[in-house]
Amino acid sequence: MSATQAILNGDRLALARLLTKVENNTAEGRDALIELFPHTGRAHLIGVTGAPGTGKSSLVNQLALHYRKTGDKRIAIVAVDPSSPFTGGAVLGDRVRMRDLSGDPNVFIRSMASRGSLGGLAQATADATQVFDAAGFDIIIVETVGAGQSEVDIARLAHTTIVVEAPGLGDDIQAIKAGILEIADVLVVNKADRPGAENTEKALRTMLELAHPTERVFIHHGAAMKTDSPKTKTDHALWIPPIQRAVSTEGTGIPELADAVARHVAHLRSSGEWASRERARLEVELEASIREGLMRKFRETLTAQAYDQTLESVIQRKLSPRQAAAMLMNGRKK
Amino acid sequence: MSATQAILNGDRLALARLLTKVENNTAEGRDALIELFPHTGRAHLIGVTGAPGTGKSSLVNQLALHYRKTGDKRIAIVAVDPSSPFTGGAVLGDRVRMRDLSGDPNVFIRSMASRGSLGGLAQATADATQVFDAAGFDIIIVETVGAGQSEVDIARLAHTTIVVEAPGLGDDIQAIKAGILEIADVLVVNKADRPGAENTEKALRTMLELAHPTERVFIHHGAAMKTDSPKTKTDHALWIPPIQRAVSTEGTGIPELADAVARHVAHLRSSGEWASRERARLEVELEASIREGLMRKFRETLTAQAYDQTLESVIQRKLSPRQAAAMLMNGRKK
Repeated sequence: MSATQAILNGDRLALARLLTKVENNTAEGRDALIELFPHTGRAHLIGVTGAPGTGKSSLVNQLALHYRKTGDKRIAIVAVDPSSPFTGGAVLGDRVRMRDLSGDPNVFIRSMASRGSLGGLAQATADATQVFDAAGFDIIIVETVGAGQSEVDIARLAHTTIVVEAPGLGDDIQAIKAGILEIADVLVVNKADRPGAENTEKALRTMLELAHPTERVFIHHGAAMKTDSPKTKTDHALWIPPIQRAVSTEGTGIPELADAVARHVAHLRSSGEWASRERARLEVELEASIREGLMRKFRETLTAQAYDQTLESVIQRKLSPRQAAAMLMNGRKK
Repeated sequence: MSATQAILNGDRLALARLLTKVENNTAEGRDALIELFPHTGRAHLIGVTGAPGTGKSSLVNQLALHYRKTGDKRIAIVAVDPSSPFTGGAVLGDRVRMRDLSGDPNVFIRSMASRGSLGGLAQATADATQVFDAAGFDIIIVETVGAGQSEVDIARLAHTTIVVEAPGLGDDIQAIKAGILEIADVLVVNKADRPGAENTEKALRTMLELAHPTERVFIHHGAAMKTDSPKTKTDHALWIPPIQRAVSTEGTGIPELADAVARHVAHLRSSGEWASRERARLEVELEASIREGLMRKFRETLTAQAYDQTLESVIQRKLSPRQAAAMLMNGRKK
């Protein structure tokens, strides 16, 4: 039986092995991705992002536990955040808590090592979610550290992006949202039992109102609801990110969070947004594949000597990087 | 007089205009970069990175002020962090403080908007530092938010990378270092007057010791010094990141930080590391230029129809993104 067949049959060891190959971008890994691709497109991809200290890892843990307790869905967790307890990064208390999931055969947790190359991590993460999708995992949760370009890239993978905030993380908090609000489908104020939770929620609400000026945003029992406004033209297609309070260490707010996610999925399906997100995501992957393929092809047609000589001219400031690139592209020979 | 000549002559308006063109990756911007490139290679590039809440923006502000007060160097600040007060992101108090610098004609502050494309921000930042370098700025400080892949990419630009930490930012703190220690040349424990500063420093020291097991790291008056060990083979080339305490809002520890940076520059020069970092940096830029050029060329030879048809096959799961990319690369026609 081939490795891909084993994965389609639910073999965990084969799955783990392929994930390593895919992460290392080996030829075998790339071939397997081609074989698995027709089996993808069924999973719900959830991105969870937030700054260190927001408790997003324990939130992911609780959300996964909730899904396991209330249904029969298979859950994969991809931790891209180097500070995540899933990657072995955090304090002992957290790591112990993660064990709640580790005995469950319908849960698979994978941490992604940060690959050196520019954009490499986003590609490796996209590939890993494809493997999980083909392997029949219904929900794939991708945890990232938040606030960077790579998180925005990874958020593009997700159908639903949860942005986690917490009180007391310094003055810059509100500012982070500037970039991250655009990618948020659901907002969580975690550690809501701590002082300042009220202010954090207020700040988020203010920013939501600024982002959606024609709507009035009401926060009610932790969920944002909009009033029907005659100004709204594409009413059925409009989604205002709800704000959910949670204390993930105690599991508080987790069922409500799962509800918010379910409402978002329903919205994506009914508005046609699910299909357009799929399309956008696959277009990003196609572009990345083209970029990677062009680069590999280019390297094959270039001698090390020609490359080194050109690089030397750049170091001596005789050629700018772009001039050198143009020269190599035009005058390349084996 | 051409725009590039105006920039070489110190025209601030021409500089600001070109930075916009470069950031938007216009043809004019790319041409100017080629003209300016022979004038680059003199600036000291300092990267400052850290999580939101560590006070790194006010640290950058103080460091720049210190350089202005104690010498005649021209300083450029490139703020890539969306939460930076330099980009207008933070609370009023910070923004007022930043005014200390804004009247100084030998200081230029530029914020980079986050560009959508994968790796786009790193390229735009690299281009902006080239412009500042050619324009005769002696020190270019690039501020990033820390902990993501894009920060690692941007850190590759810098000769000296300062990683800023602060007490009380949650449990994940020590774990962040796992990825970030590799890029740190100087470590700062900022907000050192707050409770927990001792623990933050201890955690950093422990991680340094783990990273440099053959050395003993001593923290003495805030600076890490190594003992001469017979086990050390490349003794002159070894640099153990010093740990500096600071309270940037009060300017405490800033002269010592500047000293640590100066020692690092001396180390880079004496060890030959300066040249090898320059080489590595330019190689990354050459590769990025090749990637960008190949992609542009590819787009020119491809019809929109061929692209759309292939994308459609991907969406229908008939072709994987890599298969589709290979098809487009092999069978492309105008």
